[in-house]
Amino acid sequence: MFIAMNRFKIVPGKEDAFEKVLKNRDSHLKGVPGFIEFNLIKGEESKEFSLYASHSKWESKDAFIAWTKSEAFRLAHKNAGQNQDLYLGPPNFEGFEKVI
Amino acid sequence: MFIAMNRFKIVPGKEDAFEKVLKNRDSHLKGVPGFIEFNLIKGEESKEFSLYASHSKWESKDAFIAWTKSEAFRLAHKNAGQNQDLYLGPPNFEGFEKVI
Repeated sequence: MFIAMNRFKIVPGKEDAFEKVLKNRDSHLKGVPGFIEFNLIKGEESKEFSLYASHSKWESKDAFIAWTKSEAFRLAHKNAGQNQDLYLGPPNFEGFEKVI
Repeated sequence: MFIAMNRFKIVPGKEDAFEKVLKNRDSHLKGVPGFIEFNLIKGEESKEFSLYASHSKWESKDAFIAWTKSEAFRLAHKNAGQNQDLYLGPPNFEGFEKVI
């Protein structure tokens, strides 16, 4: 099992707008081979930013990598450059493999 | 849904020893109210450290907080001060609530 997390630092006050963007986008994940589950999760809030992470679960790292090279991935991210006023910098990716 | 992650920086070369500690401990999580799932996951490896995270899923933040105040939690962490040679500093906790 593989967990892919992309961390977003959101400008304080822009949380609702960011959540709306994610809720309204089409993730194109349904039916992608090896895809298990997607969640948007929210972490700490500070004066500087509110932390969010896209958190997806995959059957394997290979399945995740294959998706990043697919048309479904391209479609899901085609508007990723929009709404730059919501973000403090680019997202920060981390991938994790299940040990136990 | 609530995700609790505790990040551990492990000294290079000590990965197997760390995994063994986690595999052999009794987490005392079975039957804890609101507990859904536990995984140990492994992230990036660098010259400085190997990143691991304990990753647990809970029905709610309240269920997680209640567990941290329970006897089951105390039992699961009673040996947490051991094996200090495996770690680069203390673990770093992050909690996340499901948005989508």
